[in-house]
Parts: sequence; structure tokens; C-alpha cells
Amino acid sequence: MKLQNDLLLRAAQGENVERTPVWLMRQAGRILPEYRAIRNSISGFKELVETPELACEVTIQPVDILEVDAAIIFSDILVIPEAMGLPYQLIEKQGPYFENTVKTLSDVEQLRIADPEESLKYVTDAIRLTKNELNGRVPLIGFAGAPWTIFSYMIEGQGTKTFAKAKKMLYTNPELSHRLLGMITESTIAYLKAQVAAGVDLIQLFDSWAGVLSREQYLEFALPYISKICDAVDTVPKTVFAKGAYYVRKELGMLNCQAIGLDWNMDIEESRALIGQNMTLQGNLDPCLLYSDKSTIKAATKKMLNTFGATKHIANLGHGLYPDTNPDHVKYFIETVKEHKF
Amino acid sequence: MKLQNDLLLRAAQGENVERTPVWLMRQAGRILPEYRAIRNSISGFKELVETPELACEVTIQPVDILEVDAAIIFSDILVIPEAMGLPYQLIEKQGPYFENTVKTLSDVEQLRIADPEESLKYVTDAIRLTKNELNGRVPLIGFAGAPWTIFSYMIEGQGTKTFAKAKKMLYTNPELSHRLLGMITESTIAYLKAQVAAGVDLIQLFDSWAGVLSREQYLEFALPYISKICDAVDTVPKTVFAKGAYYVRKELGMLNCQAIGLDWNMDIEESRALIGQNMTLQGNLDPCLLYSDKSTIKAATKKMLNTFGATKHIANLGHGLYPDTNPDHVKYFIETVKEHKF
Repeated sequence: MKLQNDLLLRAAQGENVERTPVWLMRQAGRILPEYRAIRNSISGFKELVETPELACEVTIQPVDILEVDAAIIFSDILVIPEAMGLPYQLIEKQGPYFENTVKTLSDVEQLRIADPEESLKYVTDAIRLTKNELNGRVPLIGFAGAPWTIFSYMIEGQGTKTFAKAKKMLYTNPELSHRLLGMITESTIAYLKAQVAAGVDLIQLFDSWAGVLSREQYLEFALPYISKICDAVDTVPKTVFAKGAYYVRKELGMLNCQAIGLDWNMDIEESRALIGQNMTLQGNLDPCLLYSDKSTIKAATKKMLNTFGATKHIANLGHGLYPDTNPDHVKYFIETVKEHKF
Repeated sequence: MKLQNDLLLRAAQGENVERTPVWLMRQAGRILPEYRAIRNSISGFKELVETPELACEVTIQPVDILEVDAAIIFSDILVIPEAMGLPYQLIEKQGPYFENTVKTLSDVEQLRIADPEESLKYVTDAIRLTKNELNGRVPLIGFAGAPWTIFSYMIEGQGTKTFAKAKKMLYTNPELSHRLLGMITESTIAYLKAQVAAGVDLIQLFDSWAGVLSREQYLEFALPYISKICDAVDTVPKTVFAKGAYYVRKELGMLNCQAIGLDWNMDIEESRALIGQNMTLQGNLDPCLLYSDKSTIKAATKKMLNTFGATKHIANLGHGLYPDTNPDHVKYFIETVKEHKF
């Protein structure tokens, strides 16, 4: 089906666009009262992720309400560890929790490569349903966690400030680490291919914990696996968002993908120079800026747009939306992008 | 009293040294069984901070046990908000907690500039006692939190992942923010001058949450206050450690201080080029590296030393020691630095 609004895909491919496309990380979720109404009617977050009709509904909400230029399938990066054999729970106000974690090579050997047909069908079903419901209005983004980020959850079992266990594993057991990272990578490739087969128009890899590694570790344990995924999934445009990985921007620019996400710490011009002229850049307004008044939001958004320029840019935040953001301010940000004249 | 080992001070001043001095952030604390024995004999962390005899004892422990080239007074950066009128508690396994936080300008008006004589005497007493007990063996480092980091605790009231409240305050109420940052700065200057009068040989400013600000915010709300402190406290060498502030390294290099701390993300050569040739650099081994085996620790430490070079370097970690680090590995890191030949 032909898309009525393909700004995102054209910007990702580096083509000229009438205006800069805009969507927001975490656009589907707690900021919308319509989302909270659905969330409060069911038992938990995982029920939402695992029920295609509900996932579809909350995926489309921001398209209707915020009028963004793309939908992103409502899901969680932790479906991959679960499909590999490590189930997770989401504990209210605390975050993810894994009862079992990976400690030894035999723990790794008991895991499997995720089979999307078997254990992630609720995601591909949600994608099919959403594509159908969207009816070509805007592109649908699929996503997965990057292998290092998934690895760190599988080792730590929960949120952490220091990532001491996961980094200790990299230093003390590189063999186990590479083995597990390889399995996550294979699982992710199968998962993303299934997402593409189900209809997503672009995929994004989230390396949420990139910022805790040293450059050396990132080059050994993170980037090669991202690169493998980019090479394997080659039928749709890809965006890589490695939060905090300022120290490998040059290398990110050499990936076989179309766009690189910038966090709000990353200077736009410096990043462009490091990443190179060929890549589309995505980002990078500080999500906290949406707490300020409209004139401040407008000025900062226009400044950001002018710095990125009229092409090869997808407007977004430099991190996911914070749940207590006023939806009116989010709308105002989106309108400002849409009305901007270069 | 003349110091028997003044390597730290000479390296900070850029003078030639026989070997690179070494100490570790969080060297006094939970990694040492001798510390835990004292900690378990009393009611809480704050009793340790507020009892000069005990603070002195745990300050000197790493000099005796680890043979580091400097002691750092055992204390907490949150003594400043408390001395300004916002008391804190340390909740076991959770971290700091402030019952009252700053929300409005009238909250700020109810605070006072800290008077070290009146409310921080336990710190200066601990410094005098420690200087006496050290008897010139190694220099004693004093410290304080940088204003932005202290500000964020006073607004958030506890640890946070996003610093949404503190950053929201910067965006929505710059007037209140500058007012409070100014009061923290004045308090910190008075506090550090009192530390110097009590005998510390060098001071370090910790901007632990530098990494959550954008460059623009850092230049408006963080750096000018650090600069003011550096200018005001001018009788001992100063080290500024702004964790995650990779995006203002050039500006950090222009501060009126002697040394800049690097975190483990920061590439050494790139940082030297940005910060300039005049400044001494401190750091920056990944604390997680101490989880690995000794040969890995040795190779990484020697590589780090050679990259920094034989002068204008103070060996340290790129972050505080993690509490579950094996003290033998810490000793091995220290020995490796001491035995290294350039």
C-alpha cells in the first residue's frame, strides 16, 4: 500500500523533503491520558505488549492525537531475552526484573536463538494489525534493543547505575560475552526480519546503555554486533540510536544504516562532522525542554532545525519523552517543526 | 609541616616527578573490611561523617592499607545543602533522601549561606585531626560538590535517572536557579576556604551529574559557578572532575585550576588536545577493570600511564571505586602505577 506521508522514509534515505518529518521516542505511552485509560483497564504493561489489539491501539494514538509523521510499534526491547529463555516482569515504579540471569557459560547454553514465529508472534500480529489500521497514513517503525543493551539486562537482571556486573562479565569472561552477544544478535536479526515481513517501514536499534562503555569496549563488544544486524536486515532503512556513545560517532557514521540518532548532549555540528555528510541524523531536543514555556520550546526547536538543516534530518527528542510531559507542549513542538521555514 | 611525599602536589602543579602519584576516588569506604568494621559498629553513615575521630580513622585507612599517595577527607558532598538548611538522610541501599526540597523562590529565601564555623565544624575538626595523625606522610585532599550537582539534589531530593525536576527548574525558572546556584557557590567557597584553613593540601570539586546537561545549559548554569569557586579558592591546587562533561572539555581547560579529572569514557589523547598542554590530567581507568584478572589490570594500567605520559598526570580511576571490588586488585593497580617505568 502506498504511503500518504512518506516524509520519514525519504528523509532517512537522504532525499529532499518538503518539510522535516517529526516523531518522538516514547510518543506512545504515559504522556497520553488515552493511553493511561487503556493501561488502567488491564492488569499490567506486559498484557498491553502481548495483546495485538491493544498494542495496535496505543501505537496509533499518537498519530491521531499528536499528528506525528510516523508510528512506532508499541512493544519492549526485553521481549528478546524472554524469547531466548529469560522471562522478565515489569515491576510497577521499579522497572524490569529478571528472576534468572546469565552467570555462567552453562546458563548461556540453556538459552535458545529466538524464533519469532514461535515466541514473538504477538509482535508481528500487532504490526500487521497496525499497518492495516494505519491504512497508509504514516510509516510504521519497528525496533529492537542493540545487543550490548540486551546483554546488560540479561546479566544484571534489573536496572543498575554502574552496570558493574555486565561490565565485569566483559572484562572477566570475554568468551561467554561474545557467545551471548552472538546469540542475541542472531535472535535480533530473526526478530527484525519478521518485523519487516509483517510490514514495518523502517527499523530502529536502541543502544540505551552505550554510554557506560569505554571506547575500546564499545568497539569490541557493541559495534560489531550492531554492524552485523545492519548488514543482515537490508530491505528497509535503519536508524541506530546509541545513547551516550559520543566517543564512537565516527565509527557509527560508517555503519550500513541510513540514520544515526543523536542524544541531547551531542553537539549537532560536531556530530555531523564526525558522522559524515551521507548519513541522516535524528534528534535531538532535550526532553526536559518540553517542561518549559511555549516560547522557549519554539526558539529551541527552530534553532535545532536550522542547525540540522533542511535535509537529512528527522526531528525527534534526544531521549524518550518523560511521562510527566504536558501533551500540549509535545503538540507545540510537533507543530513548530511542521511550520518551520528554512 | 613538610610533606614526606608531595608527588600529588608536584604533579598537580605540573612539576617533574620521579613517578606518577596515585590515589582512588572512594578509596576510603566499603571496599576495605577495616572500614566496614567501623561502619558496622555505629548507627549510620552520617555518624561516621559527623564524628571527627571516626572520619579521621577511615580517611587514613587507605594510606596504611593501600599505600596511596594521598588521603581524601572522609565526608559527603551533601553536607552543604544541610548546612544551608536542607537536612538529608542516607537510607541504606537507597542513597540520600531530603525530606524538604526547593520548589519555589520562597524556599530559596528560607535557606542560608553555609557558615562552616557554625555548621561544618565536624569537617574542619576531622581535617585538623587527620593532618595531625598523617604527620606529613601524604597530602590531604579536601572536596566539595560542584554547584550544579548540589543544586540537583536540593531540587530532586533523592537520586534520579532523568534529573527531570532539576532540569525543568533550569528551563522554567532560571531566576530561581541562578539565585540558588549563587548561594550554593558562596557556601562552597566559604566551606573550601575553611577546609584550606584547617590544613587540606589540594581540593577537588566533584560535578557528578555534569553528564545530564546539554552544552548550552552547562555553560550557563554549571561552569560559571565552578569558575567562581576556582577563582576564590586560590591558595592550594584544585582539581575539577566533571563526570560526563566531555562536551565542554575545551572550556574546562580554561578554568583557574591545576588539574582536570577524566572519566573512563574520555579518550586520553583527545582530552589532552582539547584541554590543552598546561593542565594536569587525573584518571581514568574504568573501575570495572579492577574486576578482571591481574594481567589484564596490569596491561590496561601501563597502557593508560604511557598514554598520559610521565608528567602532568595523577593516576586514578575514571569514577569512584565500586564497593564490591577486591582490595587485592586495588593494591595491584596501585603497585603497577608505582613500579611503572616510562
